Amino acid sequence: MGRVTVRRQVLRVTATGARTRPDSLAVEEPLETRVNGRPLAVTMRTPGSDVELAHGFLLTEGVIAHREDVSIARYCDGVDDEGRNTYNVLDIALAEGVPPPETGVERNFYTTSSCGVCGKAALDAVRLSTRFSPAADEARVSVDTLTRLPVALREAQRVFDATGGLHAAGLFTGDGRLLAAREDVGRHNAVDKVLGWALLDGRVPLTGCVLMVSGRASFELVQKAAMAGVPVLAAVSAPSSLAVDLAEEQGMTLIGFLRGDSMNVYVGRERVTTAHDTDADRAESPATPSSR
Amino acid sequence: MGRVTVRRQVLRVTATGARTRPDSLAVEEPLETRVNGRPLAVTMRTPGSDVELAHGFLLTEGVIAHREDVSIARYCDGVDDEGRNTYNVLDIALAEGVPPPETGVERNFYTTSSCGVCGKAALDAVRLSTRFSPAADEARVSVDTLTRLPVALREAQRVFDATGGLHAAGLFTGDGRLLAAREDVGRHNAVDKVLGWALLDGRVPLTGCVLMVSGRASFELVQKAAMAGVPVLAAVSAPSSLAVDLAEEQGMTLIGFLRGDSMNVYVGRERVTTAHDTDADRAESPATPSSR
Repeated sequence: MGRVTVRRQVLRVTATGARTRPDSLAVEEPLETRVNGRPLAVTMRTPGSDVELAHGFLLTEGVIAHREDVSIARYCDGVDDEGRNTYNVLDIALAEGVPPPETGVERNFYTTSSCGVCGKAALDAVRLSTRFSPAADEARVSVDTLTRLPVALREAQRVFDATGGLHAAGLFTGDGRLLAAREDVGRHNAVDKVLGWALLDGRVPLTGCVLMVSGRASFELVQKAAMAGVPVLAAVSAPSSLAVDLAEEQGMTLIGFLRGDSMNVYVGRERVTTAHDTDADRAESPATPSSR
Repeated sequence: MGRVTVRRQVLRVTATGARTRPDSLAVEEPLETRVNGRPLAVTMRTPGSDVELAHGFLLTEGVIAHREDVSIARYCDGVDDEGRNTYNVLDIALAEGVPPPETGVERNFYTTSSCGVCGKAALDAVRLSTRFSPAADEARVSVDTLTRLPVALREAQRVFDATGGLHAAGLFTGDGRLLAAREDVGRHNAVDKVLGWALLDGRVPLTGCVLMVSGRASFELVQKAAMAGVPVLAAVSAPSSLAVDLAEEQGMTLIGFLRGDSMNVYVGRERVTTAHDTDADRAESPATPSSR
């Protein structure tokens, strides 16, 4: 894991002067994912957990849904012009009967034959491709548990401490136990890594689980959670409009601005319970509104 | 610009209780960019400045380099299933003689025929495609000016104030005058929007300018700056390893952790001058090192 951070000399400038000192940087390198030998995508990622990353990516792109859908994942054994294997090309062989992904410009999103590209088209595309149904998930998570997640995720971020430069994603049980946390220079990659871990561990669909991310909640992150059957997505920062729309459409719970002892529940509030009222009625119709 | 934010009801949960209240969300919607009528890419973006976004995207992908390379940009006049134009499809007609972009899986990055995908391959791909040379730019920016940029950018972020959910990019002159600032749910889009603005304003290559971003500095953001001929990229947060490598390769100045009155200069320190020493020698070889 020596490639997760590198040291560089940096000129540190403050009000009192400037001096050169060493600094740790998060490593960013391209990973080319091939499926059955054919290039599918190149992602800029932090090396480490590459096999999980590729599995998570294929899961959230709708190519695979179970670990049995992959027969083998291995680094290509080619070398760069200095004769070294860069470990930056991963080839995934799909199991018999699993159709390979389509490639082309529409691959990552959806095909449109008219000019009416709208949020609804995006939502439709996802609804059609999700194999799991977060909507049916009767998970309950308490406010108490939720407020403990940011600290737990932060404590699991070893590389962030060194570089200050990584996004994190953590997968928790409904009662707040950390299952896995992963870091990456890319928000999507951190999520793909934890979801790939879960798939390889035979835990997909992730019934009853909470996915926590260190940044904002975008459409694509909600999409990834839906594709893995995660019922609750929590983010430290704000969600976008389409993230909320998709979470609602999928029957998921979406929480934003989860910081300190507060949070915003955008949709799916029936899964959020208070300490005094585990059947969620209080969160649904609060008897004692706060002052803000 | 009514589509930049939307209002949603949200359950606000704090230590003292929970109540429903309205909240503003940053809008995220797909934008399909077509070139000569052919779909090129779909980006999740915040509506507004779409023409700038498309120009900036085509600039930083190496398709165009001057505003004269585009003959016309217009929204498609098709409608969605409710009979409305979504303004989510933009068609760019290239000027005569401007070759349309290649599409396919390698489009966004580079083609590799061997297994040796490495950081160096990524750097090579960019070096080959940049039409401008930030390395030759003799711009100088003072520490004083640099420390004023985050506040100036923050003040220009109108939507962030409402939603807390947007990335920002600002383009400044070497003496700190704000030329343009743009916001978006996506980091790359915010940068493409300001660079597209500059292209449309006839300012590319952006000699002597500083591009400031609200988040981290990734490889792709340095790449975008290089493609527009920007000599100085400054970020509020950390750069990645490959971002520093590329900035060095391109002869750019890369600044990170620009907060309060301090910053880290990763490469290109000759362009950073102190108040007392405008020829940069002091920053280069500080006479009075600080205590940290």
